[in-house]
Amino acid sequence: MRALIDLIRLLPSQGQVNHLPRYRALVLRFQQAILSGQLSAGEQLPSSRELAEELGVSRNTIKNAYELLHAEGYIDTRKGSGSYVAHLPEHLLQKKERSPLGKSSLNNAHHSTGSDNVTADSSLKLQPAMAALDQFPMQVWKRCVNVAQASRSLLQSSPLAGDELLREAIAKHLLMRRGIQADPSQVVITSGSQEALYLVSRLLLKADDEVLVEAPGYQGTYDVVAQTGARIQSISWQALQQQPENTPNAKLLCLTPSRNFPLGHTLGLSSRLTLLALAEQNQSWILEDDFDCEFATGPVVSALLGLSQNQYAYQRVIYTGTFSRTVFPALRLGYVVLPTELIEPFLTQRNRVDGGLSRLPQLALAHFMISGEYSRHLKKMRLLYQQRRVEMEKALARSSLKDWPVIDAGGGMYLVLAMPEFVDDKALDNKAFDDLALCRYLTQQGFAVRPLSLYDPLTRQSGLVLGFSAEPEGKLASLVSELAALISAYQTIHTQ
Amino acid sequence: MRALIDLIRLLPSQGQVNHLPRYRALVLRFQQAILSGQLSAGEQLPSSRELAEELGVSRNTIKNAYELLHAEGYIDTRKGSGSYVAHLPEHLLQKKERSPLGKSSLNNAHHSTGSDNVTADSSLKLQPAMAALDQFPMQVWKRCVNVAQASRSLLQSSPLAGDELLREAIAKHLLMRRGIQADPSQVVITSGSQEALYLVSRLLLKADDEVLVEAPGYQGTYDVVAQTGARIQSISWQALQQQPENTPNAKLLCLTPSRNFPLGHTLGLSSRLTLLALAEQNQSWILEDDFDCEFATGPVVSALLGLSQNQYAYQRVIYTGTFSRTVFPALRLGYVVLPTELIEPFLTQRNRVDGGLSRLPQLALAHFMISGEYSRHLKKMRLLYQQRRVEMEKALARSSLKDWPVIDAGGGMYLVLAMPEFVDDKALDNKAFDDLALCRYLTQQGFAVRPLSLYDPLTRQSGLVLGFSAEPEGKLASLVSELAALISAYQTIHTQ
Repeated sequence: MRALIDLIRLLPSQGQVNHLPRYRALVLRFQQAILSGQLSAGEQLPSSRELAEELGVSRNTIKNAYELLHAEGYIDTRKGSGSYVAHLPEHLLQKKERSPLGKSSLNNAHHSTGSDNVTADSSLKLQPAMAALDQFPMQVWKRCVNVAQASRSLLQSSPLAGDELLREAIAKHLLMRRGIQADPSQVVITSGSQEALYLVSRLLLKADDEVLVEAPGYQGTYDVVAQTGARIQSISWQALQQQPENTPNAKLLCLTPSRNFPLGHTLGLSSRLTLLALAEQNQSWILEDDFDCEFATGPVVSALLGLSQNQYAYQRVIYTGTFSRTVFPALRLGYVVLPTELIEPFLTQRNRVDGGLSRLPQLALAHFMISGEYSRHLKKMRLLYQQRRVEMEKALARSSLKDWPVIDAGGGMYLVLAMPEFVDDKALDNKAFDDLALCRYLTQQGFAVRPLSLYDPLTRQSGLVLGFSAEPEGKLASLVSELAALISAYQTIHTQ
Repeated sequence: MRALIDLIRLLPSQGQVNHLPRYRALVLRFQQAILSGQLSAGEQLPSSRELAEELGVSRNTIKNAYELLHAEGYIDTRKGSGSYVAHLPEHLLQKKERSPLGKSSLNNAHHSTGSDNVTADSSLKLQPAMAALDQFPMQVWKRCVNVAQASRSLLQSSPLAGDELLREAIAKHLLMRRGIQADPSQVVITSGSQEALYLVSRLLLKADDEVLVEAPGYQGTYDVVAQTGARIQSISWQALQQQPENTPNAKLLCLTPSRNFPLGHTLGLSSRLTLLALAEQNQSWILEDDFDCEFATGPVVSALLGLSQNQYAYQRVIYTGTFSRTVFPALRLGYVVLPTELIEPFLTQRNRVDGGLSRLPQLALAHFMISGEYSRHLKKMRLLYQQRRVEMEKALARSSLKDWPVIDAGGGMYLVLAMPEFVDDKALDNKAFDDLALCRYLTQQGFAVRPLSLYDPLTRQSGLVLGFSAEPEGKLASLVSELAALISAYQTIHTQ
């Protein structure tokens, strides 16, 4: 008995175990002693009174520990004669590779995984598509959150499709700004356009289906579509624009008709009509990703879905949008507008995948939209971003990057520079001077600029996608100088 | 020109179009007229001044409309000579099945889909696993939301794995209450345990893999696992308890070792050790769904993952939990605790599926936990639910349902009645009297009781799962009377 008490007393208690309630720590020590064979089956445990005195803890602590050990099957309790170590199959005990308490993994609490890098971080310089968070109307937003919390209905799940108020507000916004007539029942709230893309792919695609993806385009599309086993083919926005009638037949076309990503080109009316007619004829689906319509320079062209609604009773266009760019990235809300007959199967799939989203952010966003604050914020940001774009273009023209042509069609949150030919020519080590290698280097220096070639599997054209939307007034000039200097230095190293 | 102006003036404007800004409504009318062929290619449009006068709107309205129509390719503008309808391919126009503006679908704004029924609704009577929302400390929660909103970092995305503060709080809670030593880096926040199950299935399973699912169990598991093409086999909790060594080999075992769903039985220590040894030997994975450990009567048995950590260095147990039951359903947050080597691939998969979740609810929950309010709430609810269970058992014993045996092991949010044999015997129409048909009838009467047979594909035992946790004090007696009366009436009809 003495040995047992000493054993329990002396078992190491490292790491977070120190923060446990006493009875829980005691339970852990007994569990280890029993599982490791240090306490044998049938061995009698000290009475709670005795052990309490020996360990200098209250008798209730011991009683609670014994009660839990008994409930978990580690000890048997015989009425009137005390507690005994339970009989457990010998061969299952004494594993050699036991992990001790407080093992090292407990200490790297802030270990971050590689995948964390994909999340937006406004401390990175010139990050594309990052909202100007310092301009976000935080007080207004807090009021919207408070209004959302005013009712206890907040506690009850929203419908699987998302909060009703938000879906109505989105339908109204789409009519006003995008020429889309959607019934709120067609709108499903998602965790950004990523989830919309995922759910649509899972719903519509099976192995060996053909999928066409506009190039350049969001590179994540390929990964998601490939998981379904479908066959992916890229099609350039030029081909879609110039010979839309030659577009190969496919089960699904992934398009950004209003603003190509990242170049910003808009698909013309004839091409749109042709693509819609083809979809109707081939019974294929079009996924319209309308990720970047709010901040572009020039008039906002209506969505392809709006045109389709004017032309066809039966809709083949599925429309997705996101609030990550227009409100703030941590909101993680987007939506999809579905043809009526896809609503039910889409929700069945959604029920499998995530079962719906948290109501509070949805309801707060609904109030943000209904109060008119969302439109006000969009208008303010549109002007701000246009100023910043001009500022950046000026800074580029004054820098050594002036020979890199701006090749995008006036995007509101980033611009795209093509890498000039001569850079490639001079480079002794061409591999080291493609845009991927350059961007890896720039990322190490704190710049979140992205390589253009990443987005275009057809041309692999080298270039840089430079964000300007999140940089405070007056800071763009110095950031562009810093960037130009880094690129010159890198260029010097790799052309010697 | 006169005809054109009349055409534009007279085009119907129904439904929500009335709420559009004037220039947007005008654009829609022109688009329709051009697409339908009512305006022909090359036809000259009235000048903005002329049309403004005719329609009695400002000249800017017309200018804005023409600008957008031009940007979208509907009209051409020739310097100094006005605007003309653009040339569009004839064969793409004049579709017969045009959907007119303001079509009926715009009016059923509150159309709810069938899938919406799966969401929790506290207005339903005796709903299983529904939290007592009237007891939720709303003021405390609002303070947590306000604390969460105090910092602008709220606007920036949380890591893909979820908010760091919340992951630390969960790791601490798991150590205190579930005997689990998890590093926060192993914890990934999900949209409920549903998403955890989905992501784990997609990560680990491929076509023709074998999966074992404990029966009875959550019926949604089958659906999610089946989507991966894996082969599913049910195994009874009795078999797992009595002959764990005979458990068939499988890639994944889906277990509820602490509390079977819905019966509440706990897997004993020997069985747990055997199942862990088998998983180690066969290199299979165990998914431990710990959905219902907080409110059970009696001591809270440690998680299987905790035992595994005591026994093995290499973890084969993946642990999931949810806050929908313990906080409120609309929160839609849960988590998964992953073996270290699954973290990276799990996050890669998560990045495809939803790209992460909204930060505000995560951060608010973190503050709710860190402040100790979560534990306080759990303790309060545990006592409350236990009182309600006693109250319900008394009410059942006084009712005509007294002959339906209570067969669960003391669940904290619902109890399970077996349908007595004689009910089946007496029924002339047995089909009409199985628990599925009975529950359909009871649902129509506003009761959200669930049929036991739904959860057990092996025995299909008939019974009722009755929630009591969300019913206010003193109301349970009358609800049980009402339920008993409905069942008697139904029984009378179907045994005549």
